[in-house]
Amino acid sequence: MIGRDLLGIEDLDRESLEKILETARHMQEVGRREVKRVPTLRGRTIINLFFESSTRTRTSFEIAGKRLSADVVNFSAESSSLSKSESILDTARTLDAMAPDMVIVRHKVAGVPKRIADVLDAPVINAGDGAHEHPTQALLDLFTVLQEKGRIDGLTVAIVGDILHSRVARSNIYGFRKLGADVRIAGPPTLLPPAAESLGVKAYTSLREALEGADVVMALRIQSERLQGAYVPSVREYSHTWGLDRAKLRFAKEDAIVMHPGPINRGVEIAHDLADRRPSVILEQVRNGVAVRMAVLYLLTGRGQPARGVA
Amino acid sequence: MIGRDLLGIEDLDRESLEKILETARHMQEVGRREVKRVPTLRGRTIINLFFESSTRTRTSFEIAGKRLSADVVNFSAESSSLSKSESILDTARTLDAMAPDMVIVRHKVAGVPKRIADVLDAPVINAGDGAHEHPTQALLDLFTVLQEKGRIDGLTVAIVGDILHSRVARSNIYGFRKLGADVRIAGPPTLLPPAAESLGVKAYTSLREALEGADVVMALRIQSERLQGAYVPSVREYSHTWGLDRAKLRFAKEDAIVMHPGPINRGVEIAHDLADRRPSVILEQVRNGVAVRMAVLYLLTGRGQPARGVA
Amino acid sequence: MIGRDLLGIEDLDRESLEKILETARHMQEVGRREVKRVPTLRGRTIINLFFESSTRTRTSFEIAGKRLSADVVNFSAESSSLSKSESILDTARTLDAMAPDMVIVRHKVAGVPKRIADVLDAPVINAGDGAHEHPTQALLDLFTVLQEKGRIDGLTVAIVGDILHSRVARSNIYGFRKLGADVRIAGPPTLLPPAAESLGVKAYTSLREALEGADVVMALRIQSERLQGAYVPSVREYSHTWGLDRAKLRFAKEDAIVMHPGPINRGVEIAHDLADRRPSVILEQVRNGVAVRMAVLYLLTGRGQPARGVA
Repeated sequence: MIGRDLLGIEDLDRESLEKILETARHMQEVGRREVKRVPTLRGRTIINLFFESSTRTRTSFEIAGKRLSADVVNFSAESSSLSKSESILDTARTLDAMAPDMVIVRHKVAGVPKRIADVLDAPVINAGDGAHEHPTQALLDLFTVLQEKGRIDGLTVAIVGDILHSRVARSNIYGFRKLGADVRIAGPPTLLPPAAESLGVKAYTSLREALEGADVVMALRIQSERLQGAYVPSVREYSHTWGLDRAKLRFAKEDAIVMHPGPINRGVEIAHDLADRRPSVILEQVRNGVAVRMAVLYLLTGRGQPARGVA
Repeated sequence: MIGRDLLGIEDLDRESLEKILETARHMQEVGRREVKRVPTLRGRTIINLFFESSTRTRTSFEIAGKRLSADVVNFSAESSSLSKSESILDTARTLDAMAPDMVIVRHKVAGVPKRIADVLDAPVINAGDGAHEHPTQALLDLFTVLQEKGRIDGLTVAIVGDILHSRVARSNIYGFRKLGADVRIAGPPTLLPPAAESLGVKAYTSLREALEGADVVMALRIQSERLQGAYVPSVREYSHTWGLDRAKLRFAKEDAIVMHPGPINRGVEIAHDLADRRPSVILEQVRNGVAVRMAVLYLLTGRGQPARGVA
Repeated sequence: MIGRDLLGIEDLDRESLEKILETARHMQEVGRREVKRVPTLRGRTIINLFFESSTRTRTSFEIAGKRLSADVVNFSAESSSLSKSESILDTARTLDAMAPDMVIVRHKVAGVPKRIADVLDAPVINAGDGAHEHPTQALLDLFTVLQEKGRIDGLTVAIVGDILHSRVARSNIYGFRKLGADVRIAGPPTLLPPAAESLGVKAYTSLREALEGADVVMALRIQSERLQGAYVPSVREYSHTWGLDRAKLRFAKEDAIVMHPGPINRGVEIAHDLADRRPSVILEQVRNGVAVRMAVLYLLTGRGQPARGVA
């Protein structure tokens, strides 16, 4: 049902998404125990193949794997033979020959995880590729909304900021749409994708309009290089118009929650005091990330065998 | 008794120090077995959050954690989103949301572990912060002296070198004083702290006088940047006056031992042949570091549950 | 029989080589199970002490150690106190004081693993030192040939390329010779060692002649710095004369296999389409590397105790 790899949310149907979210709920239980470890993936090897560095994603996958008792091997491009100009595919094939049970790939170029998945025996999870997809981020966002709101169907989700360059936005658009939410995107015209309609979302260049009636407001990280003038007049201007704070949040529903995939630029996309307290759920997102990644590792690696010690 | 974090020796009372040293003795037994692993912290996650690189400390904590069957996740600032300018506290909060059972922090700025501990759910161990404290180094030094001398109370300990910038010196001053030793500090006037008396120690600018009657002589590492002229005329001069060798050691008690927190600058703080042989106990310090860190991890993480398989 | 360290193939007798290869066959079975983990080295600590970075070797040892249930601690020189100018031997002694059961050393200078082994309590495995030896690479090559050909005795092995600077070539020459193969070396005169005869091999400066009747053709990686003019006129010339492709391979036996220690320079030492398909066994070499390293870790670390759960 879910397939052998997890390359993007675009490929998943509603049933698969629901299965992952349901499994994540069981994994969340494991994370609340005093001893947060189940033997499910004992003796399985997971390789974190990160060509682009990342704190939270790499660590989250590592902790998720270890909670399932898997052996996790970290491989970062910096210390690799890539500096000897070996190709990415040769590196991946070499690691694959060591018979891992799962390879998790992050790369700054869109499509690399797919190209790697095409040549590997091991299943591949995309941990972020260029401006394409970041499926586990979207899954943890869906899971967080489900936990907070009790449902996704029928909600209105406003994603704010640099939509154009955001793999998080793309994956979330697919995910929320598939589960029945109404998705809006909002940002400066230079940072909106050219064909929002084809993604099934409505584009706004007014934050106020985008937020009106929203149940979920998701701010995106803006890369500092976008703030140098080509896309946005200045940081101050961006922050003034698009940065979320408690005043602007009043346009949304009274019980709206605020999300951010992190790492946050305080005072740019989101005001200090909003980031740190409800209705922000930013740390909940991180917390749920471990449970969601456990679910994905379990479903992709442990397929066919009954869950031991999980539920 | 010991508290939830270990941020400095200054905060600990005599009873807590003795409890840690006694627990370390049990852990030392584990380290002498053929299979050096006990299940005490199975399923617990320890994060090494090192903003400043370190061989021995990081590896020592990692081995200590693994001997207790914990999962150890290494996080180094270089490969982190800090390069994306995320704040230290946001990084720490993010990791904390992944529900680790312990976070070990090293940072070149004094006070960072305390600031992190203030916002985390997980207990924090300070693995060295600026010129402030390095509590597990002092604990392993105390443990080593206890093993070598059978007691600490009533001993005379001379700490030699760059006291001013040394977190190791500060932590050791607190520790040895609390356990009843007489502590002297000695070094060039430019490298002594302004108010030695307030620390309860006597300052010497003559090595000979400082060593007279000493049971323990501890040389400190001098950072190469201090040898460029502002603090010390030259390496040769420093080594000639303050570098320990067998000749100068004759000023101390006949059975005095020589310690160094490492890494050593051979021929600067300590002569080659003295570093490598008794009465130096430098490698004993390293060996005991694993046992002491196991004790601290056990006491802080495993509080409340009986030790399984240790004693 | 095998000794306490594994520093080079030159030191091993035929019986030891056969013992390692036989043990690797059992380990290969473990690697084919769904749960690829045996409890043999539970509670043992293995330190990967890599002063020179490496993808495949470090990861291969890490996976091998974890499949035997050992705790593997990675130490890379970049993040170490070596940047504080501590000597290599002091670093190694410090790690040794933490009582590891095995230290695996890679260094760009020949002889460093031996010097380290001389001062450590823990057994040392050489994971490649300068142009000296890379014994586990040779062992996995021997194992691969044995699997492919059913024997080594009486085979003709042609090693092609930069023999002069290759630790892989040296280790393989010792290994194949000890097990009864006839070994030829071939390459531009500037890249052949001055005294081939003393190694018991015949040197060729014609690829055609070297390949005639060969059962095994092993291409070596050529470092890009050798292609800058001092050793070889140009990349194009090197590739034209010495790069393996299907046409040149016709000089060898019809059932000859092609090997390469990786990482490969596609289109330089070996043509694209030859690298990726039979008779190339490059990924088999990588796969067998894990089994061979498990065997070596088992034999050196677990000596004296019966194999639990392996055969």
